[in-house]
Amino acid sequence: MSLLVQKYGGTSVGTVERIQAVAEKVAGFRKDGHDMVVVVSAMSGETNRLVDLAGQMQDNPDPREMDVLLSTGEQVTIALLCMALKNLGFDAKSYTGGQVRIVTDDSHTKARIQSIDEEKIRRDLDAGRVVVVAGFQGSDEDGNITTLGRGGSDTTGVALAAALKADECQIYTDVDGVYTTDPRIVPAASRLDKITFEEMLEMASLGSKVLQIRAVEFAGKYNVPLRVLHSFQEGSGTLITLDEEFTTMEQPVVSGIAFNRDEAKVTLSGIPDIPGVASKVLAPIGEANIEVDVIVQNISADNTTDLTFTVNRNDMTKAKAVMDSISEELGAKAVLTDDSVVKISIVGVGMRSHAGVASQMFRTLAEENINIQMITTSEIKISVIIEERYAELAIRSLHTAFGLDKTE
Amino acid sequence: MSLLVQKYGGTSVGTVERIQAVAEKVAGFRKDGHDMVVVVSAMSGETNRLVDLAGQMQDNPDPREMDVLLSTGEQVTIALLCMALKNLGFDAKSYTGGQVRIVTDDSHTKARIQSIDEEKIRRDLDAGRVVVVAGFQGSDEDGNITTLGRGGSDTTGVALAAALKADECQIYTDVDGVYTTDPRIVPAASRLDKITFEEMLEMASLGSKVLQIRAVEFAGKYNVPLRVLHSFQEGSGTLITLDEEFTTMEQPVVSGIAFNRDEAKVTLSGIPDIPGVASKVLAPIGEANIEVDVIVQNISADNTTDLTFTVNRNDMTKAKAVMDSISEELGAKAVLTDDSVVKISIVGVGMRSHAGVASQMFRTLAEENINIQMITTSEIKISVIIEERYAELAIRSLHTAFGLDKTE
Repeated sequence: MSLLVQKYGGTSVGTVERIQAVAEKVAGFRKDGHDMVVVVSAMSGETNRLVDLAGQMQDNPDPREMDVLLSTGEQVTIALLCMALKNLGFDAKSYTGGQVRIVTDDSHTKARIQSIDEEKIRRDLDAGRVVVVAGFQGSDEDGNITTLGRGGSDTTGVALAAALKADECQIYTDVDGVYTTDPRIVPAASRLDKITFEEMLEMASLGSKVLQIRAVEFAGKYNVPLRVLHSFQEGSGTLITLDEEFTTMEQPVVSGIAFNRDEAKVTLSGIPDIPGVASKVLAPIGEANIEVDVIVQNISADNTTDLTFTVNRNDMTKAKAVMDSISEELGAKAVLTDDSVVKISIVGVGMRSHAGVASQMFRTLAEENINIQMITTSEIKISVIIEERYAELAIRSLHTAFGLDKTE
Repeated sequence: MSLLVQKYGGTSVGTVERIQAVAEKVAGFRKDGHDMVVVVSAMSGETNRLVDLAGQMQDNPDPREMDVLLSTGEQVTIALLCMALKNLGFDAKSYTGGQVRIVTDDSHTKARIQSIDEEKIRRDLDAGRVVVVAGFQGSDEDGNITTLGRGGSDTTGVALAAALKADECQIYTDVDGVYTTDPRIVPAASRLDKITFEEMLEMASLGSKVLQIRAVEFAGKYNVPLRVLHSFQEGSGTLITLDEEFTTMEQPVVSGIAFNRDEAKVTLSGIPDIPGVASKVLAPIGEANIEVDVIVQNISADNTTDLTFTVNRNDMTKAKAVMDSISEELGAKAVLTDDSVVKISIVGVGMRSHAGVASQMFRTLAEENINIQMITTSEIKISVIIEERYAELAIRSLHTAFGLDKTE
């Protein structure tokens, strides 16, 4: 008997039949004696339909009205799921974000949760009801409807779990857990039973798109045990939890191999190696609203240096234009771009206490004749930029080298 | 410069293009200096889509969750209309019923408005904004979403107009006003410039389905001038107003001819003519939730009498079964039914001060050899039940006899 917060995404509630399947699943947990709070997204396709309608009204739809519009998507799902639960003989009650109330700031379309009043939910749980809450939404202090941005339903689930001090927040999705790497590239990839919040953050931001980063951050901050599971398959999924939980385990050095194909490289070569030059290069990039990922500055030669950074591939042309506009003033020799690169990262809290992880990574890549163009490291990950055509080879060989291949 | 409340129904906002057309119309009024509050329904088809989804979840969908579901329909429209208005350069702000707040009782799917807090709307109007309100919905004292039942958007419009003391409540629809009778039957039927609330109530309940009865009652009670207009055609429509407004006019005796084809006749013949027999007949009909319209009891002969009443055609079989079950106990001779009848009514406040209206009606029908089966009268209307096949002939001849045919 525990208090569970479960979140089902748009695909899991995409049809009448699937909503009925979710109802049966939830009813099963309730029958086992668990207190159930269920967070749902809009039925898949619905949000796109609404966004499309808005686009026909206004080129840049008014953010306040966009939130009024989009929030109807989840509102439809909560009502339908409650009906399906009642049809199975289980008492249930729906809440919009505003009804709970989930108070957010007034940043329409990307609001942040500020507080949650859990009193009404608590009362319903005490009365034995399943509580169904619309994900992705809340309301500001003046009662205006707000949304948390795409994928915000994960955040709603975690925030509710934190407020209610739930035993676990379970995110149901279309994968059965977090893998050591993408199984489409490495068939020997295996599902992780456990992973730390920090590792998950590194994995997520690096391309293993199972969970919204914000939700993982939130769960880490409030120490909400988070579990990723498949909506329609059996299995215990992957538990995302605190580092301490791992102390008694034989901890692997590397937990997974992440990668990101969306990177493009921009190089400003032959710039004078004087203080402040990096800031002069990167300030206008920031002003142009371009996010920079990896940054590397070469060792100086002849008082000049090369500065290389990576941006999202969609921003490469824009970044080059910005560089072209300042390269003369900086006295740069050339602006070079390359959009056929990939970032490969090994991630693991075990790295903290193990030496030689980086050299093993570089040796493995060298043995495959893969040239490393850029390197960047953090406490629990090492990333390299390499030519994109070597991506699969690099991922497979690193997966094997760090002992992640399935054994059975 | 006046304060107008305008209501646009589902057909008027049924497509992206129509919402844009409504926005242009509203913008025109705003440009002329009017303060504008706009009430909208769900896009046509949307409510049916949602009702259908609910039906797939539960045979008798939970009323509370039904309201959560259905209220999304209008919420979509208010957001889209505000976007369209902003796109035209007009400031606008949307409100759901609960946001206004329109407080109702907790009778889900058929709630009644109890109070309206007009403060927020007033503030927006003062700031020059067009206020767009979701029709058909409100919330109860605990913040549960409620709906007012089909057609409730008219009621929302009138209630807002009453609360804001608006100069006029304009109901935009797919007809250009209230007619002396159905123009499909009498091509010479003409649009009424004015009609009283009482006449409108008699017209509406008798089959001229332009406005919801509840909305007209509400408007009459709070003396809100109500105007019916066509959404996409020019014209001044029909103003529905108080009796007093007519005092200076040359008032016609009869304002219109209404009719109702949905009637069926049930007769219990040869029952003993003793006190309490009518109640014995009609009590079980009420208990069976069948609404009775016209009731006529014949003059007694040989101490027995006939009792005839009309019900909705859909209820005829049920009503006959009820009668059959009690006919023996009452000692009735037979239970007869007839579903090929029609009710024709002449309506007009002028009847109050004019004698001979009834006899003119009966004479007109007699001249056409139409037999009258039942008669019932009120202060401002006279209704007859006749064979259905004479419906058009009766309506046309009465329309001419009472001087309602178009003159131009």
